[in-house]
Amino acid sequence: MRNIKLTIEYDGSRYYGWQKQPDYICIQDEIEKALKKITNENIEINGSGRTDKGVHAKGQVASFVTNSKIDAYKFKLAINSLLPKDIAILTSEEVHLDFHARFSAVGKKYKYLIYNDKIRSPINRNYTYHVFYELDLDKIKESAKYLIGTHDFAGFMASGSVIKDTVRTIYDINIEKRNKILEINVNGNGFLYNMVRIIVGTLVDIGRNNLSVDSINEILLLKDRTLAGHTAPPQGLYLDEVYY
Amino acid sequence: MRNIKLTIEYDGSRYYGWQKQPDYICIQDEIEKALKKITNENIEINGSGRTDKGVHAKGQVASFVTNSKIDAYKFKLAINSLLPKDIAILTSEEVHLDFHARFSAVGKKYKYLIYNDKIRSPINRNYTYHVFYELDLDKIKESAKYLIGTHDFAGFMASGSVIKDTVRTIYDINIEKRNKILEINVNGNGFLYNMVRIIVGTLVDIGRNNLSVDSINEILLLKDRTLAGHTAPPQGLYLDEVYY
Repeated sequence: MRNIKLTIEYDGSRYYGWQKQPDYICIQDEIEKALKKITNENIEINGSGRTDKGVHAKGQVASFVTNSKIDAYKFKLAINSLLPKDIAILTSEEVHLDFHARFSAVGKKYKYLIYNDKIRSPINRNYTYHVFYELDLDKIKESAKYLIGTHDFAGFMASGSVIKDTVRTIYDINIEKRNKILEINVNGNGFLYNMVRIIVGTLVDIGRNNLSVDSINEILLLKDRTLAGHTAPPQGLYLDEVYY
Repeated sequence: MRNIKLTIEYDGSRYYGWQKQPDYICIQDEIEKALKKITNENIEINGSGRTDKGVHAKGQVASFVTNSKIDAYKFKLAINSLLPKDIAILTSEEVHLDFHARFSAVGKKYKYLIYNDKIRSPINRNYTYHVFYELDLDKIKESAKYLIGTHDFAGFMASGSVIKDTVRTIYDINIEKRNKILEINVNGNGFLYNMVRIIVGTLVDIGRNNLSVDSINEILLLKDRTLAGHTAPPQGLYLDEVYY
């Protein structure tokens, strides 16, 4: 028995997310179908976490156990030859049997791209969130700083989530603007459901003066989702890296 | 009678190019259909030039004559509301009746994006040319310099073209690498059929040591298409700007 770790890039546009769902086309399924052809085993892969419909990944991680004797690095080539063009395995390597893509993860980095212009961009439409309001970048940067650290992020979690422990640590938020693209990188030990998208939506609402810079501290204090901003759409979100 | 100038962005992935063709979905058609709804006139728009199947534009220019009384800047909003998501009008303005998007153009800027990595990129697949060979950037930059200036570019024109005057001026070629993306910007007074794509293919062949740096001068001297490199694929090419 061997444990194989994969790093995966995908364009999430066409998929109902990472995780297998009956009757929907999902990324996990596509990789498992390829592994079935390669190994003739019914392999279930464990992802580091779900990504939603339309969300992309540059560095999703998944692992699986197999009896196959194939060299670990060759899985990458074999799976890629069977995958559709919008999914690719970037690396494949053998890891200790203890390794589990989800439970061994100690942190993640998400990237979010906003296309900020009065006119929508056809070329960026599936890969950015089009915000046509003028955004105050200084306010966005200032308020993002209040998110850094260990906080109860319950106010930044999709309502209806059943998770009990909603304390997470954000190590760093990096915000840069290049031409019309605003890039927000969020680095943390873990993320609640829709947390990055609600953070981004709240920062956008602050940037367009619909919420005040102070509202971040208020949301953290009162843990009330209704005080936070809108949920930014999925197509701007990228799972960039998983840390182990 | 008024003459309206449009600047247009499009994702060319879904289209058989700019120019109307029976039985194929083309960008020009989509804009003309929108104009018909807005003005109730059968308007024919003149583009600055064709772009091929799969080629993108950040700054295609087109003009049309109309009897409509609509404010020029409002055409942008009206057309955008009727266009599919992969085409957008960036600007609309009234220009002198003498203006013609094609005949008044004095130059163009094309951008070409190469994704240079051993593994293909799902996210970049429709917007870059995936080159998995290692490329010698110094050689590419050196040989690109020989293209600058006024030359007979017949050797860099798709074979079978019927144009007689094949002398063009390239003002500048700018080459930059950011992470895995190699960006090539070509600025000139005009371009022959497939000229940018053959230039890029030739630079790639030089970068991977399939052609020598000297071959550029040889192709310019002998005007022989068979000496030049391959034609780089359409999805990496962007019509960035048209100069008037």
